[in-house]
Amino acid sequence: MKIRPLHDRVVVRRKEEEQTTAGGILLPGAAAEKPNQGEVIAVGTGRISNNGDVVPMSVSVGDTVVFGKYSGSNTIKVDGEELLILNESEIYGVIEA
Amino acid sequence: MKIRPLHDRVVVRRKEEEQTTAGGILLPGAAAEKPNQGEVIAVGTGRISNNGDVVPMSVSVGDTVVFGKYSGSNTIKVDGEELLILNESEIYGVIEA
Amino acid sequence: MKIRPLHDRVVVRRKEEEQTTAGGILLPGAAAEKPNQGEVIAVGTGRISNNGDVVPMSVSVGDTVVFGKYSGSNTIKVDGEELLILNESEIYGVIEA
Amino acid sequence: MKIRPLHDRVVVRRKEEEQTTAGGILLPGAAAEKPNQGEVIAVGTGRISNNGDVVPMSVSVGDTVVFGKYSGSNTIKVDGEELLILNESEIYGVIEA
Amino acid sequence: MKIRPLHDRVVVRRKEEEQTTAGGILLPGAAAEKPNQGEVIAVGTGRISNNGDVVPMSVSVGDTVVFGKYSGSNTIKVDGEELLILNESEIYGVIEA
Amino acid sequence: MKIRPLHDRVVVRRKEEEQTTAGGILLPGAAAEKPNQGEVIAVGTGRISNNGDVVPMSVSVGDTVVFGKYSGSNTIKVDGEELLILNESEIYGVIEA
Amino acid sequence: MKIRPLHDRVVVRRKEEEQTTAGGILLPGAAAEKPNQGEVIAVGTGRISNNGDVVPMSVSVGDTVVFGKYSGSNTIKVDGEELLILNESEIYGVIEA
Repeated sequence: MKIRPLHDRVVVRRKEEEQTTAGGILLPGAAAEKPNQGEVIAVGTGRISNNGDVVPMSVSVGDTVVFGKYSGSNTIKVDGEELLILNESEIYGVIEA
Repeated sequence: MKIRPLHDRVVVRRKEEEQTTAGGILLPGAAAEKPNQGEVIAVGTGRISNNGDVVPMSVSVGDTVVFGKYSGSNTIKVDGEELLILNESEIYGVIEA
Repeated sequence: MKIRPLHDRVVVRRKEEEQTTAGGILLPGAAAEKPNQGEVIAVGTGRISNNGDVVPMSVSVGDTVVFGKYSGSNTIKVDGEELLILNESEIYGVIEA
Repeated sequence: MKIRPLHDRVVVRRKEEEQTTAGGILLPGAAAEKPNQGEVIAVGTGRISNNGDVVPMSVSVGDTVVFGKYSGSNTIKVDGEELLILNESEIYGVIEA
Repeated sequence: MKIRPLHDRVVVRRKEEEQTTAGGILLPGAAAEKPNQGEVIAVGTGRISNNGDVVPMSVSVGDTVVFGKYSGSNTIKVDGEELLILNESEIYGVIEA
Repeated sequence: MKIRPLHDRVVVRRKEEEQTTAGGILLPGAAAEKPNQGEVIAVGTGRISNNGDVVPMSVSVGDTVVFGKYSGSNTIKVDGEELLILNESEIYGVIEA
Repeated sequence: MKIRPLHDRVVVRRKEEEQTTAGGILLPGAAAEKPNQGEVIAVGTGRISNNGDVVPMSVSVGDTVVFGKYSGSNTIKVDGEELLILNESEIYGVIEA
């Protein structure tokens, strides 16, 4: 199953960091703050500007993106996996290796 | 009876998932969260942009669409069936098989 | 007496459904939810877009229209009859037989 | 004394209905709801659209106009008479005989 | 000392009505409602519209203007006299003799 | 050290009035209301309008400007001196001698 | 690791002032107000204006910028270092030596 996002929406798989203490004990996921990074899974075709033109997207599938701590509450389930739906405007930037 | 939605409105039939427990017991509908997916039944002709042009719609009749959990409170009854009225901007994306 | 609505306003006569119980007892009007449908009695010439052009209306006199449950609080009395004043943007769609 | 309203403002003299009971007793004005109709006394030259053009007015001096029940709180005194100052956007329509 | 208002601002000297009772007793100024009229002392060059053009002002120095009862809280002191600073959009109209 | 303000920002040195009573006693600065006037120290290049053009500034370095009593809470320290950062839209006008 | 900010976002390294008392005692960082200045580490390509054009940025990598005391709450961690994410509109100006 695949999702085609509309307009300037971006589907993001949130990065899951291993939660281990210094002593190597694995912490339950809920105990840690979720990382505000993820991998872009799908991008829309771009928002439609006031004069009707499509504004091309600034992120691409495969990009690692950073977003704000108050973003990421809109989620969808695709094949049992929870993915984030972001507007491109919620994305701060792209991490470059 | 048919409805012709205005502008960028979309009429959606919400997906009804069978509510059965692992043991096969059918749960009453009210006990489960309603799925935020549905089938597009009718689409408007598109919103009118600031310069007066019509912006074509990005969804079509028959599409399976995903929308936010806070969308879907506007409903109409057509032939006894409750259907959702969404703005296209409330739709996250289209599920592709 | 007639009213000529301004811009994108629409005058609507709300549909009055007969309120009878299964056993045929007529319920007083106040006990039932008012139907969010009506007949278009008059339409304005269209709203004026940002660049000064008039945007033509998408509904016509005689159309049966559906509107939201929170619309319809603006009313006027014409010849003793209470009619609704809606903006076209409050109308979800047109019922087609 | 005359007032020249600016932009899309309209000066309206509110209709005063005679307040008599069925038995012919004159009610004091304060006891009745004020009618949301009036006669247009003066109109502005029109609001200035985003691109700087003047949008012509849709009401004229002498028109009987209907407005919302929450409009009409802006008043001015001209020669001892209280008149309403409305924006054209507050006017629902024009009554035609 | 003179003030040159920016953009669509207007400097207004509020009209001071003599506060005398029918019996000719002068009331202290604070006991009476301030009149929402005044004389235009200075006008800006006009607001800059969205496309960068200057929109010419609709009031001139010397005009007697009427404004809303909630306008007039922005004041400046020029040579010991308190003057009002209004946006042109706060002015209802111009009184013509 | 100098600051180059961005867009339509203006750096202003607030006027310090001598605080002396009629009898010549110097009042401590904190006991008096701060004057809403000041000298322009630096101006930005102008805000960028909706169509991408730069709107030229209406104030210049050296101007004495008047601003509202609720403006002036954004400050920066330059060489130990506290200066105000205003948007041009917060400036009412320019005092001309 | 590097971040490429989107649109009109700016990555800023906040200036850390040495916190020493007059007597030379080093104060713990938390006891002092954080300085509202910093060095620009990365800039976006510019926001997209209403007509679809890119508005070039007014700050460059290496600039020392001043921002408001209520800005700077959006942060990201890059190589263990906390950096600020600002919109260009939050930046008051550029410090010039």
